[in-house]
Amino acid sequence: MVSKNQIKRITGLHQKKFRNEQQLFIAEGIKVIQELYNSSFEIQEFYSTDSSLQLNNKVKPDIISETDLKKISCLKTPNTCLAVFKIAPSKPIKYEGLTLVLDDIRDPGNLGTIIRLCDWFGIEQLICSEETADLYNPKVIQATMGSIARVNVVYTSLERFLKNTKQPIYGAFMDGDVVYETELPTTAVLVMGNEANGVTATVEALIQKKISIPRFGKLQKTESLNVATATAILLSEFRKNLSGK
Amino acid sequence: MVSKNQIKRITGLHQKKFRNEQQLFIAEGIKVIQELYNSSFEIQEFYSTDSSLQLNNKVKPDIISETDLKKISCLKTPNTCLAVFKIAPSKPIKYEGLTLVLDDIRDPGNLGTIIRLCDWFGIEQLICSEETADLYNPKVIQATMGSIARVNVVYTSLERFLKNTKQPIYGAFMDGDVVYETELPTTAVLVMGNEANGVTATVEALIQKKISIPRFGKLQKTESLNVATATAILLSEFRKNLSGK
Repeated sequence: MVSKNQIKRITGLHQKKFRNEQQLFIAEGIKVIQELYNSSFEIQEFYSTDSSLQLNNKVKPDIISETDLKKISCLKTPNTCLAVFKIAPSKPIKYEGLTLVLDDIRDPGNLGTIIRLCDWFGIEQLICSEETADLYNPKVIQATMGSIARVNVVYTSLERFLKNTKQPIYGAFMDGDVVYETELPTTAVLVMGNEANGVTATVEALIQKKISIPRFGKLQKTESLNVATATAILLSEFRKNLSGK
Repeated sequence: MVSKNQIKRITGLHQKKFRNEQQLFIAEGIKVIQELYNSSFEIQEFYSTDSSLQLNNKVKPDIISETDLKKISCLKTPNTCLAVFKIAPSKPIKYEGLTLVLDDIRDPGNLGTIIRLCDWFGIEQLICSEETADLYNPKVIQATMGSIARVNVVYTSLERFLKNTKQPIYGAFMDGDVVYETELPTTAVLVMGNEANGVTATVEALIQKKISIPRFGKLQKTESLNVATATAILLSEFRKNLSGK
């Protein structure tokens, strides 16, 4: 059972404002919930229409009706379960290894895909501008598939971060040097810009090396690669030198 | 003005069955419509809430109300315009160059992203299994951003295509050879498998060389890369040898 008040409170978590106020977020689907539960996230509430569901044979859900699940869900076609977790504080910034920086990535799906990529490529730190999509947006949580637990995501001023780091700063630009012909270090910062406008001018001024993925189409009409696919290619280029080592 | 019958007919095009019957599809937003109009697609109907819109200073829209646009739109938040285009027949299959093959990619967003990637990397032919998401699904049309006009997409039996080609056949597998250490030819076929189940067994039997993108995460927990981001990395690896030539 969920009361009207609970429904109101959980629905509030669909919005960033209330997530920040309550320091709580929503996850849906047993796979994502189980992954978050097994990692560092503290579960607060666990609802399901299916009484046979359990987390680690231990945590049983509060059984709710399909109608109520639909009310609290963010999905058009709700799963069988929804959980509320505590937001975990970000860990302190480290100035080492390979760090990815996002300059105003607005699409939650792109952010989610990029977090999965960081996890795959062993990038433990993702620095986001304050305008980047919210990590705890339900669409991001669904897209990350639990990898959110393994990447430290920090929202901060990119100018401050880039001024403080001693690592070489690379950025993705349409007119940068061809990445395939560029020597890439294993320790660096890589900046990816906004979907429509690219890297902002103040951030661009702090970038030491511009790189790009060349276009091979004859007609040269494709405007740009999607930011998540461009990130995939560039992270692969940075990481390949470690392959087999 | 749109009549009730027109609304019914256009709404029908949200479904594959009616698109196939009528050989028509929907595009929304002036950018996508303009790109399709400028390429090989024949426009049938053009509706807008904005009387100032025109295609190449020539084609004016039928003005409709926001309420009617909402009825015929596939988007939650409709744009200001919607057009109906004729489906263009696929061109005959060529057995040359680099061809991408999709084995049951179900997500329209993934298919759209992959078509944009083909366009970027100058891959003119995309072979899809019959079970792959429909090219003319409105979500695919929105995600391709017009690059659909520059890639020949053919739905056919993958077994037949792979048996007919004389090009070397590569496939993406979790346990394949590390792509970074593999010599890749400039002319080849690359097969990408379904989001959840990978490449089907009958197709796998026809693959000559399995390749994979190694995982760098310490914990090795990320289950897999999203198929669109994996495609991005592999196409980049195939194409880079052409860079600067």
